[in-house]
Amino acid sequence: MGTVPLLSDDAVSAEALAVFDDIRKVRGTEYINNFWRALAHDPALLKATWERLKDVMAPGALDPLVKEMLYVAVSTANGCSYCVHSHTAAAKAKGMTPEMQGELLAVIGMAMQTNGLVTALQTPVDDMFEAEP
Amino acid sequence: MGTVPLLSDDAVSAEALAVFDDIRKVRGTEYINNFWRALAHDPALLKATWERLKDVMAPGALDPLVKEMLYVAVSTANGCSYCVHSHTAAAKAKGMTPEMQGELLAVIGMAMQTNGLVTALQTPVDDMFEAEP
Amino acid sequence: MGTVPLLSDDAVSAEALAVFDDIRKVRGTEYINNFWRALAHDPALLKATWERLKDVMAPGALDPLVKEMLYVAVSTANGCSYCVHSHTAAAKAKGMTPEMQGELLAVIGMAMQTNGLVTALQTPVDDMFEAEP
Amino acid sequence: MGTVPLLSDDAVSAEALAVFDDIRKVRGTEYINNFWRALAHDPALLKATWERLKDVMAPGALDPLVKEMLYVAVSTANGCSYCVHSHTAAAKAKGMTPEMQGELLAVIGMAMQTNGLVTALQTPVDDMFEAEP
Amino acid sequence: MGTVPLLSDDAVSAEALAVFDDIRKVRGTEYINNFWRALAHDPALLKATWERLKDVMAPGALDPLVKEMLYVAVSTANGCSYCVHSHTAAAKAKGMTPEMQGELLAVIGMAMQTNGLVTALQTPVDDMFEAEP
Amino acid sequence: MGTVPLLSDDAVSAEALAVFDDIRKVRGTEYINNFWRALAHDPALLKATWERLKDVMAPGALDPLVKEMLYVAVSTANGCSYCVHSHTAAAKAKGMTPEMQGELLAVIGMAMQTNGLVTALQTPVDDMFEAEP
Repeated sequence: MGTVPLLSDDAVSAEALAVFDDIRKVRGTEYINNFWRALAHDPALLKATWERLKDVMAPGALDPLVKEMLYVAVSTANGCSYCVHSHTAAAKAKGMTPEMQGELLAVIGMAMQTNGLVTALQTPVDDMFEAEP
Repeated sequence: MGTVPLLSDDAVSAEALAVFDDIRKVRGTEYINNFWRALAHDPALLKATWERLKDVMAPGALDPLVKEMLYVAVSTANGCSYCVHSHTAAAKAKGMTPEMQGELLAVIGMAMQTNGLVTALQTPVDDMFEAEP
Repeated sequence: MGTVPLLSDDAVSAEALAVFDDIRKVRGTEYINNFWRALAHDPALLKATWERLKDVMAPGALDPLVKEMLYVAVSTANGCSYCVHSHTAAAKAKGMTPEMQGELLAVIGMAMQTNGLVTALQTPVDDMFEAEP
Repeated sequence: MGTVPLLSDDAVSAEALAVFDDIRKVRGTEYINNFWRALAHDPALLKATWERLKDVMAPGALDPLVKEMLYVAVSTANGCSYCVHSHTAAAKAKGMTPEMQGELLAVIGMAMQTNGLVTALQTPVDDMFEAEP
Repeated sequence: MGTVPLLSDDAVSAEALAVFDDIRKVRGTEYINNFWRALAHDPALLKATWERLKDVMAPGALDPLVKEMLYVAVSTANGCSYCVHSHTAAAKAKGMTPEMQGELLAVIGMAMQTNGLVTALQTPVDDMFEAEP
Repeated sequence: MGTVPLLSDDAVSAEALAVFDDIRKVRGTEYINNFWRALAHDPALLKATWERLKDVMAPGALDPLVKEMLYVAVSTANGCSYCVHSHTAAAKAKGMTPEMQGELLAVIGMAMQTNGLVTALQTPVDDMFEAEP
């Protein structure tokens, strides 16, 4: 399934296997999800994507759970089924309660709705919303 | 500009003015932004949208700043210029620091990127990401 | 402005001018809107697009006003500012009342909202919604 | 399947069951489709969504079949598979003939095409398409 | 599956069968893929779509492989699963190597990422990027 | 304009200035376009984005002009006005002729159109388009 086959550990290059090892270490699990097994066809792309993801999703000014919910929000608006599934699972693993998930959905639905209304109205941006020059 | 003119307080119906009054009260400002002035052509739609927005964006299991950032994330993925401007301004008003804005952008960029990669790969969803039946 | 300059009647090829003439005749106006003036850089693309548009938007099982509103709906979801402006103007010219515009917006907003909810939920399609094999 | 399990009548709260009952009454069928069974995890979101949908999709200045076709158009542009399935089925139930479905598709295809062309050209909006101030 | 059943050769009209015959001749294969079998419900739409596709995808200033990769890029950004599958297969048939596919994915991911960043920043377009008037 | 002000060379950090210097060196021009001046508010994000872009857009199995056209295709489907402008300008600088631009637009328009048709039809993917397991 998909546009490339999923690669098992035996089938990937040494460079890709090193990325798999780092994913396992950072996440504390043996399981490598399908996205990485598909991306492993291009070890350089796999490595660049994982290194950047690890950096971006680490704790910072925003906590990791908020980051996962932001990821779900973007992925939903882009209609990426795989991403919605994987980052919803990640958000739950990081503590998203059913109440939080319900509010996440409500905000996504509200934003989608007003995105549509504003775009259909082609409302000009208020001056006060522009950053100071 | 736009597909309907913006309505001043003098030009709106009594029903729309009552909504404007509630927006002013809830937000603690006299300023009514353009979106509501455009939507006021249809007082019932204005009222339904505002009532729902007020409810959805209120403090709950998620705090209002997180909700504003989720709104920015969805609006960005949908390419809604007005919405990105207005909800970025709202997020700043609710305490989003430059560091938080930088991380918000980094997560949006990362999610957009992997949304594209996964969709181009058409990777099947891992069983473990599906909710229990 | 734009990625190509807009071409005046004097600047276009004979093939493009023939398309402009047909647009003028079919629409009963001398005015050629900017889209066609930009597209005129590639007369074959201009001609193919206009011929197809003329055909698709003609009266049929759906009336032209419904077709214009469908056009606005798609253009809104795609965030195409030019298209929302031009097809809203066309819909008004074909009889869209403020009440109809209000309902058009309400349906667009509702659809955007549930598109987001369903996508975030990744709800499986009911068997009864599939066409008979 | 999905990011939450589908809830049977036995598993939902009293508030959600009351919404299910209203869906059954309004639609004249015992069948509750999967979207509502997924949304029932958050009874307040379920109720708000259903109440609004019932209102927006009711006969008004636009007839219900036109509204369903607009819903299909938005859902297609957003790539929402579930929504395309369910609202195409609803449109058929409300009288959409094969001829109408063919024209709906042709308009969607045409709009998508010119959305792409205009966006690639970045054509500026004609003054005449702007609403009077 | 889908919103219309797939039509076998026996079930299509003479006009649709003539299109199938041309597809077979141009592509040098007996196989008609599902898209055309679904579209055959509306022979005029089938014919217009195929005739245009044949024209647009023919060798020209851009070679057919580049055109297939552009098709994959657009289809990915639009989240069209069927289109990503079919045009990735077509690109491979026209000589896309694994290295080229890897770079295609990397560019798609990069573009998605900066699309998100620019949209969140709402950066104004540099004057030098505008076409000369 | 935008959600952050554009930063002049005088206003950016040493880390951001080093990125500007590298952009100037690699591109052989003193001009720094607005995207980088906006992104400079977060020097780490600026650096990560530029480093990755430089890598991805370098000559490889695909030539840089093809990569720019792919970038335009994705940016168009995502409706990113800034990106369409900047990468169309880059493609022209790398040799895109008017004929090539015309064909690029024709492919984008065609892909958008069939993306819409397939999504509205919800056509199942042909087995032959799936990668071998």
